[in-house]
Amino acid sequence: MSHNQSATREFLDRCRALVNAELDRSIEQASASERLQEAMRYSVLGGGKRIRPALCMAAARAMGDDMEKALVPACAVELVHAYSLIHDDLPAMDDDNLRRGRPTTHIAFDEATAILAGDALQALAFDWLANNPAVPADARLAMVQELARAAGHRGMVGGQAIDLESVGKAITLAELETMHRHKTGALIEASVRMGALCATDRDPDRLDALTTCARALGLAFQVQDDLLDIEGDTEVIGKPQGSDLAREKPTYPSLLGLDGAREHLQALLTQAQNSLSDFGSEADPLRAMADYVVARSH
Amino acid sequence: MSHNQSATREFLDRCRALVNAELDRSIEQASASERLQEAMRYSVLGGGKRIRPALCMAAARAMGDDMEKALVPACAVELVHAYSLIHDDLPAMDDDNLRRGRPTTHIAFDEATAILAGDALQALAFDWLANNPAVPADARLAMVQELARAAGHRGMVGGQAIDLESVGKAITLAELETMHRHKTGALIEASVRMGALCATDRDPDRLDALTTCARALGLAFQVQDDLLDIEGDTEVIGKPQGSDLAREKPTYPSLLGLDGAREHLQALLTQAQNSLSDFGSEADPLRAMADYVVARSH
Repeated sequence: MSHNQSATREFLDRCRALVNAELDRSIEQASASERLQEAMRYSVLGGGKRIRPALCMAAARAMGDDMEKALVPACAVELVHAYSLIHDDLPAMDDDNLRRGRPTTHIAFDEATAILAGDALQALAFDWLANNPAVPADARLAMVQELARAAGHRGMVGGQAIDLESVGKAITLAELETMHRHKTGALIEASVRMGALCATDRDPDRLDALTTCARALGLAFQVQDDLLDIEGDTEVIGKPQGSDLAREKPTYPSLLGLDGAREHLQALLTQAQNSLSDFGSEADPLRAMADYVVARSH
Repeated sequence: MSHNQSATREFLDRCRALVNAELDRSIEQASASERLQEAMRYSVLGGGKRIRPALCMAAARAMGDDMEKALVPACAVELVHAYSLIHDDLPAMDDDNLRRGRPTTHIAFDEATAILAGDALQALAFDWLANNPAVPADARLAMVQELARAAGHRGMVGGQAIDLESVGKAITLAELETMHRHKTGALIEASVRMGALCATDRDPDRLDALTTCARALGLAFQVQDDLLDIEGDTEVIGKPQGSDLAREKPTYPSLLGLDGAREHLQALLTQAQNSLSDFGSEADPLRAMADYVVARSH
């Protein structure tokens, strides 16, 4: 393991520990229904790489603040991500029984509880963003707007709708990109932007540069996901390998070929790294995260 | 029709017109998926009494502002209400095919689209609250907190979870009340409180009085709903009459008897009206809405 790789692992481990502790603490508070709360905890605390929280905290660091400054938006974006996975896995959607090597929420509990747990996690994300004493009111509002748009019909949910419509259809590379810009890209962009928005010095040029970086990373993340679906090991990726192919979902490798997809991934990584050229060592965690997104094995 | 009744109708009609126009205008903006957007519009614009928006606007009026001041939170609470109906009607939840005399969203579209439309409507509610230029940043944040808590696992969604768990079980009056305080009460309380929170003069005593009024109204609303399920006409209430009974759902009449439930309803109405005793004519729309909630026929 190189020095860079070990620094990245250290940063990711620290983010994960902070975020997991905060999520664990906060979903412990009494809920109206014990079963609902258990389902929420099962879905949120059952592992996960916490890539979005790490991107959020790395962005706060890139703006010159401590990574801890972005702990609340880091958790909020993970709550939205967790809710989207629960709903994605439902029988009416992707109908997946396995996630991160464990039964999906509707299998471990039941479908109704899974739907409600997802709904509650989305509400909780906005509750946290609005109740974050670490940042001023205008920044909190900006983050609520950012997350609401990224999560909604013009962002993540819109992308999931396009995804459902595109199964079994021949689509172009541009259409595939539009789908992913919404489905995964919007939330990754929001992760980075929220981290930057809670910084003390919200320099607009730096925010723009981070946004450009996040857009490239969002697509790179999806290309790597598609490659892992073909090349990855079922045990490591936590879901049946080749499941996209089996569902006739359009992917980057199916449109560009394996080599073409790998080249596309490298080009996106270069784009992400170049957008950070005006930043000093304060952007090193974000640079490391960019490398990690592309190199990850699951 | 008495003078009071016609004034109430006029107020409700005006609220409904304002809210419907705003909802129509705003969900028209381009979405990523046309089908998703259609499902959102179908669910939000397909009728509905707009009781929660009217309560929200009546509360703003009671605090001394124009009712229009609360247009954005009025729409936001209706979006959350609409999303909750879509998810409630799903096969895994109440499995209803009919709502307001029309096919439910998952019947008119499909289950996956219905899940996503609900998810998107929840996000949109927070987007609107955060983007409301009519009120200052701290009031907007207070409204985001209010709605997020009322909608989440300690509010509406928590109540739905209790509801699912209580089907076919013998429960006490106290347990029934806890369920409804969460399931319908929390959102009705938030409607009133958000209307008050966007007022120019946010007098804490008046906010407390309105909160007390809203709590009583929230329960009254549910008692009347239970009575309508027994006494109402299928065509007027828009769903099969007696459907609660058929599902063995506990109701106020099943626990208190018909007369007992009617008395309970009157006591709650008196409580709601009494809490407004220090208000002048500015609270007349809210008083009228309280009477309406109890007297409505669907």
